[in-house]
Amino acid sequence: MAKIRVGIINVTGYAGVELARILSRHPEVELVSVTGRSAAGRRLSGVFPHLASINLTIEPEIGDVDLAFSAMPHKESAQQILPLLDRGIRVVDISADFRLKDATKYQSWYGFTHPAPQLLPQAVYGLPELYRAQIASAQLVANPGCYPTGAILALAPIVKAGLIEPDIIVDSKSGVSGAGRTLSLNTHFSEANEDVTAYALDGHRHLAEIIQELNLLYPAPLSAITFVPHLIPMTRGILTTAYAPLAQGKVSIDQKGKERLFRLYMDFYREEPFVRVVEFPPHTKHTWGNNLCFVHPTIDLRTGRLIVISSIDNLVKGAAGQAVQNMNLMLGLPETNGLEAPAIYP
Amino acid sequence: MAKIRVGIINVTGYAGVELARILSRHPEVELVSVTGRSAAGRRLSGVFPHLASINLTIEPEIGDVDLAFSAMPHKESAQQILPLLDRGIRVVDISADFRLKDATKYQSWYGFTHPAPQLLPQAVYGLPELYRAQIASAQLVANPGCYPTGAILALAPIVKAGLIEPDIIVDSKSGVSGAGRTLSLNTHFSEANEDVTAYALDGHRHLAEIIQELNLLYPAPLSAITFVPHLIPMTRGILTTAYAPLAQGKVSIDQKGKERLFRLYMDFYREEPFVRVVEFPPHTKHTWGNNLCFVHPTIDLRTGRLIVISSIDNLVKGAAGQAVQNMNLMLGLPETNGLEAPAIYP
Amino acid sequence: MAKIRVGIINVTGYAGVELARILSRHPEVELVSVTGRSAAGRRLSGVFPHLASINLTIEPEIGDVDLAFSAMPHKESAQQILPLLDRGIRVVDISADFRLKDATKYQSWYGFTHPAPQLLPQAVYGLPELYRAQIASAQLVANPGCYPTGAILALAPIVKAGLIEPDIIVDSKSGVSGAGRTLSLNTHFSEANEDVTAYALDGHRHLAEIIQELNLLYPAPLSAITFVPHLIPMTRGILTTAYAPLAQGKVSIDQKGKERLFRLYMDFYREEPFVRVVEFPPHTKHTWGNNLCFVHPTIDLRTGRLIVISSIDNLVKGAAGQAVQNMNLMLGLPETNGLEAPAIYP
Amino acid sequence: MAKIRVGIINVTGYAGVELARILSRHPEVELVSVTGRSAAGRRLSGVFPHLASINLTIEPEIGDVDLAFSAMPHKESAQQILPLLDRGIRVVDISADFRLKDATKYQSWYGFTHPAPQLLPQAVYGLPELYRAQIASAQLVANPGCYPTGAILALAPIVKAGLIEPDIIVDSKSGVSGAGRTLSLNTHFSEANEDVTAYALDGHRHLAEIIQELNLLYPAPLSAITFVPHLIPMTRGILTTAYAPLAQGKVSIDQKGKERLFRLYMDFYREEPFVRVVEFPPHTKHTWGNNLCFVHPTIDLRTGRLIVISSIDNLVKGAAGQAVQNMNLMLGLPETNGLEAPAIYP
Repeated sequence: MAKIRVGIINVTGYAGVELARILSRHPEVELVSVTGRSAAGRRLSGVFPHLASINLTIEPEIGDVDLAFSAMPHKESAQQILPLLDRGIRVVDISADFRLKDATKYQSWYGFTHPAPQLLPQAVYGLPELYRAQIASAQLVANPGCYPTGAILALAPIVKAGLIEPDIIVDSKSGVSGAGRTLSLNTHFSEANEDVTAYALDGHRHLAEIIQELNLLYPAPLSAITFVPHLIPMTRGILTTAYAPLAQGKVSIDQKGKERLFRLYMDFYREEPFVRVVEFPPHTKHTWGNNLCFVHPTIDLRTGRLIVISSIDNLVKGAAGQAVQNMNLMLGLPETNGLEAPAIYP
Repeated sequence: MAKIRVGIINVTGYAGVELARILSRHPEVELVSVTGRSAAGRRLSGVFPHLASINLTIEPEIGDVDLAFSAMPHKESAQQILPLLDRGIRVVDISADFRLKDATKYQSWYGFTHPAPQLLPQAVYGLPELYRAQIASAQLVANPGCYPTGAILALAPIVKAGLIEPDIIVDSKSGVSGAGRTLSLNTHFSEANEDVTAYALDGHRHLAEIIQELNLLYPAPLSAITFVPHLIPMTRGILTTAYAPLAQGKVSIDQKGKERLFRLYMDFYREEPFVRVVEFPPHTKHTWGNNLCFVHPTIDLRTGRLIVISSIDNLVKGAAGQAVQNMNLMLGLPETNGLEAPAIYP
Repeated sequence: MAKIRVGIINVTGYAGVELARILSRHPEVELVSVTGRSAAGRRLSGVFPHLASINLTIEPEIGDVDLAFSAMPHKESAQQILPLLDRGIRVVDISADFRLKDATKYQSWYGFTHPAPQLLPQAVYGLPELYRAQIASAQLVANPGCYPTGAILALAPIVKAGLIEPDIIVDSKSGVSGAGRTLSLNTHFSEANEDVTAYALDGHRHLAEIIQELNLLYPAPLSAITFVPHLIPMTRGILTTAYAPLAQGKVSIDQKGKERLFRLYMDFYREEPFVRVVEFPPHTKHTWGNNLCFVHPTIDLRTGRLIVISSIDNLVKGAAGQAVQNMNLMLGLPETNGLEAPAIYP
Repeated sequence: MAKIRVGIINVTGYAGVELARILSRHPEVELVSVTGRSAAGRRLSGVFPHLASINLTIEPEIGDVDLAFSAMPHKESAQQILPLLDRGIRVVDISADFRLKDATKYQSWYGFTHPAPQLLPQAVYGLPELYRAQIASAQLVANPGCYPTGAILALAPIVKAGLIEPDIIVDSKSGVSGAGRTLSLNTHFSEANEDVTAYALDGHRHLAEIIQELNLLYPAPLSAITFVPHLIPMTRGILTTAYAPLAQGKVSIDQKGKERLFRLYMDFYREEPFVRVVEFPPHTKHTWGNNLCFVHPTIDLRTGRLIVISSIDNLVKGAAGQAVQNMNLMLGLPETNGLEAPAIYP
């Protein structure tokens, strides 16, 4: 049977090249076209020796495909995607260009006027744990940001249950690959190695997504979310530590409350192939190279505060893996296709 | 003029060996005696080649000294220190054994009955930024833990000013040397490298110190402090990100409020030789090997929440450097003696 | 069709756990039994959360299997294997216990008397690139050491062609996982991070294998091999830089000679699924998590010296991946089964 | 007494900023002027927060100084230095521009015509262990490259004694800071982390220095030197492993020969304040941040081959520290002034 033909726009960034890796092992789709500006004309395996098994040349324009992934930077991504949508091609956009529902937010958070606000309502936020059905029938899926994936999966069950006060702190620790393949001083090895720092204290763009999505789950306005990302000296992984006061009187602040909380999370994610609710603080290492998200909810018994910790690989569940999960849903394929390989440890 | 004679009990842990490094360059004291159980009888420079310039043999018992540092683990430290105190020797204890004022806390946090509760009132908590005068005249100084140093310096000005609600979250990211030189799976290279995890979610022992000290500064009981430490893949450094709601109506939630906050911190630390209040999120790398603490206070304008970030070298300001700072105060020496060398970057 | 049943003796070391990862995705075998002393009775996924998809309990003794892998330390491995061989079970031994043909070498290199010298002649050295046919029919395959794999693959073509003088230097740089999961000071994070050192200068045990195997390829005695391993601060990977004088007058010391050398290597490895001869110095990162070996042969034109560089993942081609490759051959399966996934980059 | 006034041309690279760190603690010189193109006009402590104790603004041109360090890239360095020399200012040039005695080598190795070949005879190669007296009276000192420092110190004693065959291999492993502060893909964190690779196989420029200097020590032409540098995932440090056949019949290939070799090295470096001959393979970590070079000579008894391993901090003994050592000699100051601080471990 002929495989489904897929392509990657901008294969040369870390999300794009990770997509190529995952798709190369997918049983039912075939990667037939990859683009990249600076590297156009070169063999994919020439630029990325680890992809020696893929026989493709990097092209300036995407070829004939059934579904395309865009791994372009924001703003440019929309420009590349619009003509594809017109031609009826289904698209998973890894950029931020269709994640926010409110077109005015693009101006305030990303500094550009959205070129196709009319498409925002129909674009589906590609977090399968929340929007599985809508993703399946969407033409355009907006793949979530890496930080929002970790933060929303950590908080969705408790926010939806209305068991916390609307007063959330998300403290995330990311590997450096999240900053991409473009050179900068803060991702220069000698600067980032043996160092940790917080950044974007005035508001990281991913906060807009976190607010939008958690708000959709919560019965009341939920704007008091503080998000502080940190860069730590490793290549892959995001650990998110989220804090919120438990709603007064709704969860007991004791061992029983902890158990109830754990069951709440277990129930919420029971059918999820890629979320594991665990009874220990998770390690990012245990997701290295695969699409799992580990979630550990607990209660600080001294203060009655919820603590939830999640771990993901920022390039897999935080980008390329989730994009393939979305693609599987859009194509009616088993959701885990191409994503079953365990993490690589140590 | 004869130098003051000092010794180190248990030089073979990371705090002990770092003390030896710093003391070896001190202009007015001389390191004359070092102890260590397993390595007793060996040359210090044989065990630690980087200390080739120090001509000492590791002894089973501390020799004749004017002042001793104890870098023993808790419980054992008190046992070693008590006879020295009886002999009138001044002591800087790097262990936790005299940090807590309430003897019953040793049972609940450390699991042992304190052997000398009568000494707790006279032991001074060795954070010079808070207790400079008392340290100067103390016989026994309890050197703060590494996490409390970063957390308290981040929060003391605002807590003392009473400008936050008593609802604090301290999220700390520590290099692996904080876990010491004793072998364990979680500090095995292949486990800790390329990984991040939270630990001690049920309550890290250092929380007891943080609560005790911040409470002494705050006009009302301040128990709602959540502290979550994280292990990140670097050797040295602690970055602490602290969060708290600003007290309603006391600080304006705008650029002016940020400036007022900055001035508050500047004023609090104006005379401090080792605290730098900065207008950017600090890097741990900028404290590598020296005794500085960088502090960056700011406001999350979306939520009215205070964010303060501090960075230290956990083995210097978080242990050995602060111990030398305390010693300088106790001996009436210039506080920065032996501690002036800039951090090593990159 | 029923899958072939395989087991792992000592799954709790890094080679064992890596085997479990690879086998869990193998299309034609099923991992049905794993042993481990200290962890016996625990769920495999409890000890190793990244293996959540494997439903096995760690047992004290290997169960009923068609083929067993032993990842025991040397000496103990032979003890565990002998009864299995008696029962007709086929074995891939990842330890060193059957790699050396000369039983007396176990005394001199490993310090024990070999318990079954009569089996040494029939054990096959499990480097498929040299012994594919013999492996296919062997009952007992001795999986090569990690360093020998990189060194022999780097040198086999030129040694066999007799184009170098018998005067070889092998300088290897290994990630820390090669030292195993057992705790030691030199693999403690704070010691190994930001450090590099040479070790085993008096003769690393793997040298015995390197000498044995290269000698079998060379027309004359070939004992003048110097091997120096180095530990570098990364988890996985071995880069081997091998040097030897080109045999006088046999290869021209110019661009043409380089091209001839490249063709020689290309021809030697033309049919090999896991060896890639490349025209650039390879990175270990390009083999991260997979079974490839990159080889780059070149000539130092100033000195007429051969330089060959190889890169592998020490836990895959250097251990567990090669063991599966051997198993595939023994079972008559396609050699690449279960080993096709590209490396994970970055 | 007035301090000697010194300046740094191009303080913003890693060698320049390391110089500033070391000079800031020097007892007899004062850093009065620093230049840097892109950062001109900014406070030094604004660009480099760890240098908060230095009160200087980065200028476009060097001010009035008694001695200048140039940390400019090659070719540009000579251009900046020539006018200073004309004004009688003494100069330590950290670039390569005056290291090679043969002007034609600049064309072949560096690709430019040397602008002042008449100065090459009077420029002194700034390796104090070889040229202490000449450095003292030089106006222009050419500070050695980082790799040559490690390689020459490893080999000088045995080469000068004529006890090896002229057939040397130098295999070096360098931290990433050696590649400088200028951005490039191979020093991007996600590329360099968890990776090792060889580079410059066609001839690294530092080889020219190594050949020149070792040849001056050896009684016969010594061109058969192979040098292969490797990049490993750490910030600082170079470990050099050098190999050469011992001259036939001159050193016994046994324990006695090893001891004789050790004594030869001990004698050669007996008076050297910064070279330590040791009986164990050295770690780069033991030189972190200081000017020491550890050297370990031994014999591979199986092959009669000399192995010498040296470790340095590439930015200290390999650049800025050695530059200060040279300055001390030029100014008649104690050679160790400003360089006594022990390495920072762990």
